[in-house]
Amino acid sequence: MSFRAVQWVDESNVLKLIDQRVIPSEETYLQLENTDQIVDAIVTMAVRGAPAIGVAAAFGMLQRARQCDASNLTDLKAELEQCDNQLRASRPTAVNLFWALDKMKSVWTSAQSKEELLTNTETMALEIESNDIEVNQAISRHAMEVVPDKVTFYHHCNTGSLATVDLGTALGIIRTAHESGKDVFAYLGETRPRLQGSKLSSFELMQYGVPHAVAVDGASGHIMKTKNVDMVVVGVDRLAANGDTANKIGTYNLALAAKAHGVPFYVAAPTSTIDMATPTGDVIEIEERPSTEITQINGVQVAPDGAPVFNPAFDITPGALIDGIITEHGIVRQPFEQSLKALFENLPS
Amino acid sequence: MSFRAVQWVDESNVLKLIDQRVIPSEETYLQLENTDQIVDAIVTMAVRGAPAIGVAAAFGMLQRARQCDASNLTDLKAELEQCDNQLRASRPTAVNLFWALDKMKSVWTSAQSKEELLTNTETMALEIESNDIEVNQAISRHAMEVVPDKVTFYHHCNTGSLATVDLGTALGIIRTAHESGKDVFAYLGETRPRLQGSKLSSFELMQYGVPHAVAVDGASGHIMKTKNVDMVVVGVDRLAANGDTANKIGTYNLALAAKAHGVPFYVAAPTSTIDMATPTGDVIEIEERPSTEITQINGVQVAPDGAPVFNPAFDITPGALIDGIITEHGIVRQPFEQSLKALFENLPS
Repeated sequence: MSFRAVQWVDESNVLKLIDQRVIPSEETYLQLENTDQIVDAIVTMAVRGAPAIGVAAAFGMLQRARQCDASNLTDLKAELEQCDNQLRASRPTAVNLFWALDKMKSVWTSAQSKEELLTNTETMALEIESNDIEVNQAISRHAMEVVPDKVTFYHHCNTGSLATVDLGTALGIIRTAHESGKDVFAYLGETRPRLQGSKLSSFELMQYGVPHAVAVDGASGHIMKTKNVDMVVVGVDRLAANGDTANKIGTYNLALAAKAHGVPFYVAAPTSTIDMATPTGDVIEIEERPSTEITQINGVQVAPDGAPVFNPAFDITPGALIDGIITEHGIVRQPFEQSLKALFENLPS
Repeated sequence: MSFRAVQWVDESNVLKLIDQRVIPSEETYLQLENTDQIVDAIVTMAVRGAPAIGVAAAFGMLQRARQCDASNLTDLKAELEQCDNQLRASRPTAVNLFWALDKMKSVWTSAQSKEELLTNTETMALEIESNDIEVNQAISRHAMEVVPDKVTFYHHCNTGSLATVDLGTALGIIRTAHESGKDVFAYLGETRPRLQGSKLSSFELMQYGVPHAVAVDGASGHIMKTKNVDMVVVGVDRLAANGDTANKIGTYNLALAAKAHGVPFYVAAPTSTIDMATPTGDVIEIEERPSTEITQINGVQVAPDGAPVFNPAFDITPGALIDGIITEHGIVRQPFEQSLKALFENLPS
């Protein structure tokens, strides 16, 4: 079974998304026909996962460029500027969104004609999409260096095919280990409030036949203590120049539990999620999401009416708690200030 | 507003319980007329909280003694033995259940006549009930020594009036601090899987007017880092002779987060929850509960059909992570092996 969280339907200029809000009870596809619909899908998390959001935004730019009936290039660029702003405002923490929009912007701002703009935005959006798959495959390939033949993973949130264009980052590593013949078991944190672990990651691993168990997020310490976990693998929404990692709320607690029990903690990070312009995690804006994510579950009220809530979507795991950052160019080790700098200085052009 | 989780209705020989499975959406009382119904209420967590379970079991013994139509003392004791076994099998981890049943047993096994047995079981059950209230008041009184006038608490699960006969242990400290005029704010971990934090503790604090916010369990590290938490207060289901604390799953993670940020971690523990016969937490049996607690929330499916689950109800927080154990006789400090031993040697008889 193949999941394509994000699919571009070129002939109808439509972005097709699997609606991640209703998995696993329904498999529903959304046909997004304009920018407002794409922004709404990102805000409401019909599409989520840093890489998937980036790709969705890239196609959102292409879609708008094709739809625009401006008679001249200046008006077209003005409209794309507006589209770019709308998409940038949709979610603040994940850096892929901005990375993808920056890549698109470099193309549409430099175009000398309407035709060139349309051609080059199409080329760039498709490149961002295909690049995501190649990057994920490379991350899994490098990860196999540190994954033993019999392995128990711990994973948080969803970082699989549903979070990317295909395969995924951290969950892609688990899937790849299984498919390459290793003896794999995975503990999946359910990942409150939106339950991406139980709703999405368990759904994916059941399709792939990977043995696993879902646990509440508060059980990670107990599991590290009693279950011989070999390694934690998680994704990342924005990774700072010192290795500080903004990821789904609960990742930091998981890292503390791993550290207390000497379990290696790995972050699977496409270089597009590494933001060298962000020196440390302290300056990363943490999105706060609606209180109903906590007080209601699938529309059912689970807290008193009006119960006050604090609902940060992400937390920062200090680089000091991370053993390795698995990128498409290899595994980066401590000290991250130096190793990440060296990684970017030596990137293939 | 007063919550009596457990009420004995003497004239009808009935145990009246507020059904904690349906709070906050409903306020329903169960009238338990026999041992099977009481066991079922404990197993399904209509009544929960170590002290409340202990009191419920004590009245369960009294109820059965009165109902028994045995013509002689031997047959009555045989029936009570059976009742005692049924109640002991209901939940394995909390020690209050066994503590209360032991107290009852010392009375019914030593009785020389049916009349003496009935009188003494009644006296003992009522004593266990009133003792619980006095113990909680004393815990709150001692806790005020370490609670600053402006204080931000972090609390897990529910340890309030709903978990005890009245007032509660850790949540009783928060309530008492508020009612004594301190400037109180409390973060409440929602406490998956059964959401006692959002369903019960938020419900209680809203009634008492205590400012608070509910957060997902995975947010505790982020909150410790960013919100100036002054102290963690939690309850306990069984506390070993070295201070190791079996409490609701997620407590250990909370203790690791507190330690990482230098936040004092206190366990509110009636001496009835301290089991000096248990040397360390390693020998405490951890109850595993049904997978549907994780795959369904209020009857709504939130994970794929057949998703595999690991659902431990409790974890062990090592004594080394605990700053103080607040008992009805005062606050016990490190090293706990010595201080707990001294506490029990000097108990008022």
